[in-house]
Amino acid sequence: MVSSCGSCETCTDDQENYCPKMILTSGGKYYDDTITYGGYSDHMVCEEDYIIRIPENLPLDATAPLLCAGTTVYSPMKYHGLDKPGMHIGVVGLGGLGHVAVKFAKAMGIKVTVISTSDRKRDEALTRLGADLFLVSRDPEQMKDAMGTMDGIIDTVSATHPVLPILDLLKYKGKLIMVGAPDKPLELPVLPLIFGKKMVVGSMVGGIKETQEMMDLAGKHNITADIELISADYVNTAMERLQKADVRYRFVIDVANTLKPSP
Amino acid sequence: MVSSCGSCETCTDDQENYCPKMILTSGGKYYDDTITYGGYSDHMVCEEDYIIRIPENLPLDATAPLLCAGTTVYSPMKYHGLDKPGMHIGVVGLGGLGHVAVKFAKAMGIKVTVISTSDRKRDEALTRLGADLFLVSRDPEQMKDAMGTMDGIIDTVSATHPVLPILDLLKYKGKLIMVGAPDKPLELPVLPLIFGKKMVVGSMVGGIKETQEMMDLAGKHNITADIELISADYVNTAMERLQKADVRYRFVIDVANTLKPSP
Repeated sequence: MVSSCGSCETCTDDQENYCPKMILTSGGKYYDDTITYGGYSDHMVCEEDYIIRIPENLPLDATAPLLCAGTTVYSPMKYHGLDKPGMHIGVVGLGGLGHVAVKFAKAMGIKVTVISTSDRKRDEALTRLGADLFLVSRDPEQMKDAMGTMDGIIDTVSATHPVLPILDLLKYKGKLIMVGAPDKPLELPVLPLIFGKKMVVGSMVGGIKETQEMMDLAGKHNITADIELISADYVNTAMERLQKADVRYRFVIDVANTLKPSP
Repeated sequence: MVSSCGSCETCTDDQENYCPKMILTSGGKYYDDTITYGGYSDHMVCEEDYIIRIPENLPLDATAPLLCAGTTVYSPMKYHGLDKPGMHIGVVGLGGLGHVAVKFAKAMGIKVTVISTSDRKRDEALTRLGADLFLVSRDPEQMKDAMGTMDGIIDTVSATHPVLPILDLLKYKGKLIMVGAPDKPLELPVLPLIFGKKMVVGSMVGGIKETQEMMDLAGKHNITADIELISADYVNTAMERLQKADVRYRFVIDVANTLKPSP
């Protein structure tokens, strides 16, 4: 975001991301009625309060996606107390949000289980990203063995998917945090919530203050997103590949070097 | 409950009600394999740690249902911080749980809106129980006007019902507390949770410590359940009437005066 009202309940709570007058970095309408283009433009002007300092040791390209994916997973982990060493969290879906969630959780000293629909990403999760455990959500035996073991789960999946097996993984008072946004309603079984004092909560990106915290933590632990750097003229192909989930894990457009002035 | 393990995570958290070894007051199996009959028996023996003191000013018959309904609504209000004067909560469904929720909320200095499917209980809610506002959930205009006004909502309805209009009544960070237990999953729209940082949480009765707190508060404010006192031989008729929701709001069996020894 590039601005917000600064005085409402959410702004004074350092959660400008929920301000009803928040202006999006890209595709938003600024106070002078101009449209914001964010990272798709060669320069932009922004109020200083909405600027995040990027630690010098981090490369700009692989750090850029943290300003969405990083804060999206960091904010609810922090807010809901899922940032304590020794805790155990699950990450549902290993994509743009999920792989960053694993990295931040490991940096916080948290045990991480990646939950995926197939075995395909097991090596990636365990070996390359350093997750502790890997669960195939379609394997009832594996899911049963892991029941009641997690303090929280970050669900990054935006396709409609069953919630009950995920709720069952949570301990008493466990928290299921939805950061993926399915179009259609999910089927929520209420009894597991009641019997386990469990919670389902939504979260959308993060406020400026916690985004800076996330960035500082990323700098300290050398956390970046895994990206594929593309040139501006590759954008249409990238969109096609995105629809097939064919990217590990974020495309970043090298605007400075490849964006040409319109003729 | 009449016992629990006393040493697990939930017991040491004063939430014996979630202890996996908790023994129900009625229909539970005690350590010596006898079945517990709770209030359906003419006497019972119970460990002292599971006894609640009833304030002397409260009548026993109308107080008895508080040991379920009272603690069921008090516990989540307290745990989720919905017990602060000046807050605004909604109560969905005006029955055994709902009417007690209104009384406790008013005793805490909280503004209460009763949400019901029809206008039928308006007078009852506003005039007799002292609720501040009454909303008909099937009236889109009324619901729209109340959007974003509530800090929390206690949903006592165990029939399947739409969640979206209820979520919309909540403010930013608002909490929907499910204490009714629908058999079938509810349809949970995820976007309203994400955009408003809202939460859906389950809760089941309460621990001994908070049940005593609830009872002391009831004593202080003369809160009891609205009951119909019946004799033991009326039980079958009462069950039939319960199925038609024909009771305001709890039947209480006068065991001491009407239960006869089996021949």
